[in-house]
Amino acid sequence: MLTYSFEDKGKDSLYEYLYKQIKNDIISYKLSPGEKLPSKRAFAKHLNISTITVENAYIQLLAEGYIYSVPKSGYYVSDISSTKVLKEERPTKDVPSKADNSEIFADFTSNSTAKDSFPFSTWTKILRQIMSDYEKELMVRSPFAGIKLLRNAIADYLYQFRGMAVDPEQIIVGAGTEYLYGIIIQLLGREKKYGVEDPGYQKITRIYQANQVQCAHIPMDENGVDIRALEDADADILHISPSHHFPTGIVTPISRRYEILSWAAKSASRYIIEDDYDSEFRLMGKPIPSLQSIDVADKVIYINTFSKSLSSTIRISYMVLPKSLVSTYKEKLGFYSCTVSNFEQYTLYRFIEQGHLEKHINRMRNYYRIQRDTILTCIKKQKKYNQTVIKEEHSGLHFLLQVETDLSDEELILKAKENGIAISCLSQYSYLPENATEHTIIINYSGIMEKDIPEAVDRLFLSLWNE
Amino acid sequence: MLTYSFEDKGKDSLYEYLYKQIKNDIISYKLSPGEKLPSKRAFAKHLNISTITVENAYIQLLAEGYIYSVPKSGYYVSDISSTKVLKEERPTKDVPSKADNSEIFADFTSNSTAKDSFPFSTWTKILRQIMSDYEKELMVRSPFAGIKLLRNAIADYLYQFRGMAVDPEQIIVGAGTEYLYGIIIQLLGREKKYGVEDPGYQKITRIYQANQVQCAHIPMDENGVDIRALEDADADILHISPSHHFPTGIVTPISRRYEILSWAAKSASRYIIEDDYDSEFRLMGKPIPSLQSIDVADKVIYINTFSKSLSSTIRISYMVLPKSLVSTYKEKLGFYSCTVSNFEQYTLYRFIEQGHLEKHINRMRNYYRIQRDTILTCIKKQKKYNQTVIKEEHSGLHFLLQVETDLSDEELILKAKENGIAISCLSQYSYLPENATEHTIIINYSGIMEKDIPEAVDRLFLSLWNE
Repeated sequence: MLTYSFEDKGKDSLYEYLYKQIKNDIISYKLSPGEKLPSKRAFAKHLNISTITVENAYIQLLAEGYIYSVPKSGYYVSDISSTKVLKEERPTKDVPSKADNSEIFADFTSNSTAKDSFPFSTWTKILRQIMSDYEKELMVRSPFAGIKLLRNAIADYLYQFRGMAVDPEQIIVGAGTEYLYGIIIQLLGREKKYGVEDPGYQKITRIYQANQVQCAHIPMDENGVDIRALEDADADILHISPSHHFPTGIVTPISRRYEILSWAAKSASRYIIEDDYDSEFRLMGKPIPSLQSIDVADKVIYINTFSKSLSSTIRISYMVLPKSLVSTYKEKLGFYSCTVSNFEQYTLYRFIEQGHLEKHINRMRNYYRIQRDTILTCIKKQKKYNQTVIKEEHSGLHFLLQVETDLSDEELILKAKENGIAISCLSQYSYLPENATEHTIIINYSGIMEKDIPEAVDRLFLSLWNE
Repeated sequence: MLTYSFEDKGKDSLYEYLYKQIKNDIISYKLSPGEKLPSKRAFAKHLNISTITVENAYIQLLAEGYIYSVPKSGYYVSDISSTKVLKEERPTKDVPSKADNSEIFADFTSNSTAKDSFPFSTWTKILRQIMSDYEKELMVRSPFAGIKLLRNAIADYLYQFRGMAVDPEQIIVGAGTEYLYGIIIQLLGREKKYGVEDPGYQKITRIYQANQVQCAHIPMDENGVDIRALEDADADILHISPSHHFPTGIVTPISRRYEILSWAAKSASRYIIEDDYDSEFRLMGKPIPSLQSIDVADKVIYINTFSKSLSSTIRISYMVLPKSLVSTYKEKLGFYSCTVSNFEQYTLYRFIEQGHLEKHINRMRNYYRIQRDTILTCIKKQKKYNQTVIKEEHSGLHFLLQVETDLSDEELILKAKENGIAISCLSQYSYLPENATEHTIIINYSGIMEKDIPEAVDRLFLSLWNE
């Protein structure tokens, strides 16, 4: 089998180095066109590296056209003498990260919000008003936590629509939740061990890793994080999304919520980061109270974003600190400038205050309900519907489709791609192999155009079995 | 002397704990109203902590009204039975960080830009255009590094006005330099030792400390950071502002620049962060080339902001990575969303492209030159002008005023404050006592109203001697 030594990798990551080595061998014809590359698993074992590393290297090579994939068979070396390799042709331009994005008919992997749904005319009308009404205020530096008017509006909103009694003093506004996660690490300390859900939203792990912070991956049961595993993991901080877990869709019931709060109350150093990112889009039943609202021990940092409910191109998120952390925050991190511009802070303040956010969310909830119902109807019409199970469809903006099939998850993804459908599987979101579930597709429906749904579902079902 | 043990301080910082201990003793009348507190230096020595820690605790107590200061004498315990302590009276409102801000006539400590100078009507006109011209693009998620149009515009700008040949691929746009510093730590690694200028801009040290990264304070000579001290400090990364150092105003000459580059070239792990924050406002002579533009070893991360040249309420900064770090950045940190909203990215792009930035900077350069000349004229008219020396006045937006006086720096600051003038001294920006210079006032003039200058200078000079 192909063998590479990683001794000279220098500052490259393992995957980067592997990618370069293989690429060089392809360019120099050490690997011949049409030659089969080792399977990811075998190659990883052989090189004593992780499968993910090999996978990342293969994906990069695939995207750049150095290799191609044959479904149910594997990866093969491209004939580069005929292929024009993007990267070398346009040295100073952006290299598209996916070479064949244009062939995608529907993308069930994207969690971006529906583009046309953003209340553009209302937003820009308010922004225009703000530019005349607040000319002076727009030029006054925002407090580190965000302008008072916006924090008041958020507090009112949380009280009315989420039943949370929050002092505006506890609210910190920032340019996106990813930014706020980094700030939380600075607030709570990097010597702490951060527990994250497994499976879970991969970016959260990446952020902790980029900050070189110790991360524990806590397995989930059907009610959310497994409490015994949590105790065993010896984590200080637990980062969870109990309202609607991504990707499993689990809504943590109230009894488990109390168990989680009880875990936190047992030690002074323990805190919970509650990411409530799409709680607005619960489509059925009464929302379950947030952890923050039933926490009496001052242990919960609540975090939410407007990028999900408005548009991913507006970068405004916020967190609600426990009262006991407010003064610590001011002292330790109050010197930071607020990362959101005044123009957007004032616009969002008025947008909320005039009731537009509420209206917009109601409208979107209906929109997503129709979206979901249309997809479910299309799925139920499929001949092979009885070989699938739909799971966790009551919350927005995704659900799960479990499939009885002989194909592996990798094969499912490749076959769907050939049919113009981008999908991801639950197993891809598991950090530890023992926490992975096979044959479960995540259906993110927020970014699919309604008119494309019937064809998208047909194409998806075409890809699920080996025929 | 007062003695406190720091054994039970728990998670508090030293200063926070000390502040709480003294406050408790005042509230419980263990310290009586009118009782004198120990001098900062003696107290620090007695408790075996740094003078800065004591100073911070005193400032907090002073701001909250628990103690008061008597010029030339020291700090005394307030009579809290009669004083209404702000913090306890208004539990849910903002506590003003300075109790007596309203009495300040002119603030020479603020580095905020002139409020009325922002080209508000041009900016809002373009923002209005953008809202109609780019409706679709505004809803498309920005690449992690910022939208291409803006990065192209920045690259063109740097080429034309700073002589820097930069590929737009090297540019990363983010919500403020403080945010980008945090990202650089993630890029270069937190196991590195970061060298900062001493004296220097305090926020930089605070950011490294908040990120729990090891920091070395490198003393300055008249040409910038001291190379021998730099070698001795064993730092990996050097964070400097060679174009115009704050607060000393030093412009590092070209020979020293090469020495600094040569230091960096000696080891693979060494990098330079070049903060070029106000290079646009050099008021005399030809600008010296940036380190980035004479660096052939790919060692310089160049960083600059539009918050300084436009408005501190617009949070857009950028950095230029060395070419060799571009792919590392993509892999390690490319998953982060860009922190600047599309509305502002597109507006800034067009603002630069249509030449408004250039015009604005020219206009501001003239404005600041007049501002500086007016202040210098007013200073030269003072009777006691011959007991002062003006230093480093050729770059914007501050210069130094060295004073022959018997007053200590603390007394200078307090006396000026009594006269309604906020000032800061060079010594306050030194981290290590041995790097401190006494009797040198920093005159930040960018935020002073022109009409207030004569009175502000009169009031300032009234405060400089003990009479």
